[in-house]
Amino acid sequence: MTASLKTVDSTSSVSGLMQDIGRRARKAARALGLAPALQKEKALFAMAKAIRATSREILAANEDDVTEARAAGVTGSFLDRLTLDRKRVAAMAEGLEVVAELKDPVGEVISKWKRPNGMIIERVRTPIGVIGVIYESRPNVTADAGALCLKAGNAAILRGGSDSHRSSRAIHAAMVEGLRGARLPEDSIQLVPVRDRAAVGEMLSGLGGNIDVIVPRGGKSLVARVQEEARVPVFAHLEGICHVYIDKAAKPAMARDIVLNAKMRRTGVCGAAETLLIDIAADENIYKPAIQALLDAGCEVRGEDAVRAVDPRVRPASADDFGKEFLDAIIAVRFVEGVEGAMAHIARYGSQHTDAIVTQDKQAAARFLNEVDSAIVLHNASTQFADGGEFGFGAEIGIATGRMHARGPVGVEQLTSFKYRVRGSGQTRP
Amino acid sequence: MTASLKTVDSTSSVSGLMQDIGRRARKAARALGLAPALQKEKALFAMAKAIRATSREILAANEDDVTEARAAGVTGSFLDRLTLDRKRVAAMAEGLEVVAELKDPVGEVISKWKRPNGMIIERVRTPIGVIGVIYESRPNVTADAGALCLKAGNAAILRGGSDSHRSSRAIHAAMVEGLRGARLPEDSIQLVPVRDRAAVGEMLSGLGGNIDVIVPRGGKSLVARVQEEARVPVFAHLEGICHVYIDKAAKPAMARDIVLNAKMRRTGVCGAAETLLIDIAADENIYKPAIQALLDAGCEVRGEDAVRAVDPRVRPASADDFGKEFLDAIIAVRFVEGVEGAMAHIARYGSQHTDAIVTQDKQAAARFLNEVDSAIVLHNASTQFADGGEFGFGAEIGIATGRMHARGPVGVEQLTSFKYRVRGSGQTRP
Repeated sequence: MTASLKTVDSTSSVSGLMQDIGRRARKAARALGLAPALQKEKALFAMAKAIRATSREILAANEDDVTEARAAGVTGSFLDRLTLDRKRVAAMAEGLEVVAELKDPVGEVISKWKRPNGMIIERVRTPIGVIGVIYESRPNVTADAGALCLKAGNAAILRGGSDSHRSSRAIHAAMVEGLRGARLPEDSIQLVPVRDRAAVGEMLSGLGGNIDVIVPRGGKSLVARVQEEARVPVFAHLEGICHVYIDKAAKPAMARDIVLNAKMRRTGVCGAAETLLIDIAADENIYKPAIQALLDAGCEVRGEDAVRAVDPRVRPASADDFGKEFLDAIIAVRFVEGVEGAMAHIARYGSQHTDAIVTQDKQAAARFLNEVDSAIVLHNASTQFADGGEFGFGAEIGIATGRMHARGPVGVEQLTSFKYRVRGSGQTRP
Repeated sequence: MTASLKTVDSTSSVSGLMQDIGRRARKAARALGLAPALQKEKALFAMAKAIRATSREILAANEDDVTEARAAGVTGSFLDRLTLDRKRVAAMAEGLEVVAELKDPVGEVISKWKRPNGMIIERVRTPIGVIGVIYESRPNVTADAGALCLKAGNAAILRGGSDSHRSSRAIHAAMVEGLRGARLPEDSIQLVPVRDRAAVGEMLSGLGGNIDVIVPRGGKSLVARVQEEARVPVFAHLEGICHVYIDKAAKPAMARDIVLNAKMRRTGVCGAAETLLIDIAADENIYKPAIQALLDAGCEVRGEDAVRAVDPRVRPASADDFGKEFLDAIIAVRFVEGVEGAMAHIARYGSQHTDAIVTQDKQAAARFLNEVDSAIVLHNASTQFADGGEFGFGAEIGIATGRMHARGPVGVEQLTSFKYRVRGSGQTRP
């Protein structure tokens, strides 16, 4: 399957096309908001089935994308993210089934209370409306993001990376087949059919009030552009500059295991630790195993003189190394003056994403957990737990570091809004 | 007391001044976020005391404001809202005490769960950060809004109407005295000291990331400007076009009482009904008492021919009368085809604020409550209950019709964000 993209003559016709997509999404969202849980579940299972049934077409489309990307000189992790194989397509279908089986958040009564005049007030979850997802060349996001939006009763407008447009179109076709099978509006999940960058600009402007929130999925430059230009709320994090702090009251083996996992389990994820802070009052036997384990695992450790004294393999750190998201097997290490010093460092260099303390001192832990102003703060656990799945949300569309509405892992529940339902028996206000 | 306003030479110095206010607010917010409940409570009580102790100065400042406004030809409700008297000043102090006694939302564990690996995850309320409040010449907002922000651990930047600047300054002085008394940063509640409109523009741009949310308090044109220009989230409603729908299964006396209250209790509030919808299948005796009660109470009733047939005092309605916020003793009335017709009308003309159904038919009520997409939907109760106090929130900073973060009455709880606190015992991610 080689999908052809619409060619659009001018910016104004991209604008017209996008405005139309917005209107259709809003209309679909109204229907979706009232769709019973079972109907959405059915659609998601039907999508999984369609993905499996068309996996040959999906893989063929992907091969064309990969060939084109290779010809353009694309290599490395970008090419890896773009490339699908049988296993990845199967995982995509399974992912849809996982979302299908999640609890439907819409209609859930979040809280309920009775007023002295007898009125009963309920706070009830409702969909947000229309969610715009802007992503790079990771074709599986077409399935993942579309499914999560749908589960929460939202219409989705998906704008995938242009390098993966054939793959995304093939996956999207399967999603639409699932929608059709469950008699949900086909416009519930729309894929932007043009490659023009102007389409992104249109989405960031909110499509005349027809996009309620934007979720960017991709590298820092994409997120930065979205955060800078969007006229609608954005669920995202720009950087994950995550810290692990080893307190003087840490257990050496626990500190070692947590630091090693936080940095090295996967170095390219946003929850990977980028800086290790060590209590200056700690004995060397508390933190030395952590530093040596990192070095032994092939991690480049960069530190100031005091850190270099611990092991000759430690390289000198520059001032730039602190507050830097390496996304690689590199870590910056610094001694700080206890919890206070660690918190001051994090306040200055952190990105309000995820930070951890390792200590047996409950008071130190309590201070850290209360005072560090990050979406996720952990005590005696790895920063790599920063993930919707690990939180028990079933799946996530991303991690947010903003303070409004959604923060931390953004799962199905975070893709909802709410309203108040009031039941009276003739009450009037005095 | 005649407060003098700083005169600022150029737009660039307004900008510099505002940026500085933003930085100081952020710094205060960091301290406030960690302030114990008792300290904030103490500050609020001290503010109430200071308001009472300086009521003479507040009233003198207000007299100067009123004199100037009168000289400029200001009259009517604007002048009324601007004018303070002993009773209003006392009410302001009492309002501060009410907020002081509210439950502190910061630190509240919203939910808590254990993961299979033993980690305990808590979702905990935190302050949002810095809240910008832009209001018109209602001096009491200086006290109300400042207090609510503080209670939720937020720093506030208040920009009051220029006609009330002397009154606001005098009230603000008392607030600062309260902060000082409780040893909280004086910058926790700042009043913008310049009258330039450019200050508002600076706030709407977010002061370099130092304003997290803007709350406009005032008429439609202020809210429209804020919604149009703000680069940060806004908690607001543009209009309250509230509907009451009398179903064929309504009790006549209940319908009459609710409609009369919804329209006439106070006509200038956002929760006042602006349109009455009547089930075309209803007997005349079900809705006639409501229409007559409105007319007898001096309300102008505007309706199409079928409505005019009910009572000769009904005036003809124009198409413009539907979807119009009269904020006056005027109501538009229309017959609709049952719940379905009422919901279609509300979807087209409503403002997603507050809408009510009057019926004894549980199914009709359930449909209306589930399907009407407004922040507040009521069954057998007056739309005038759209109010944080009436919801049991203690106080509100306003009502929001957006779908993100805060919706409906915005009380202390809605002025908070959250974070995740994770407690482990050495867990690493597989």
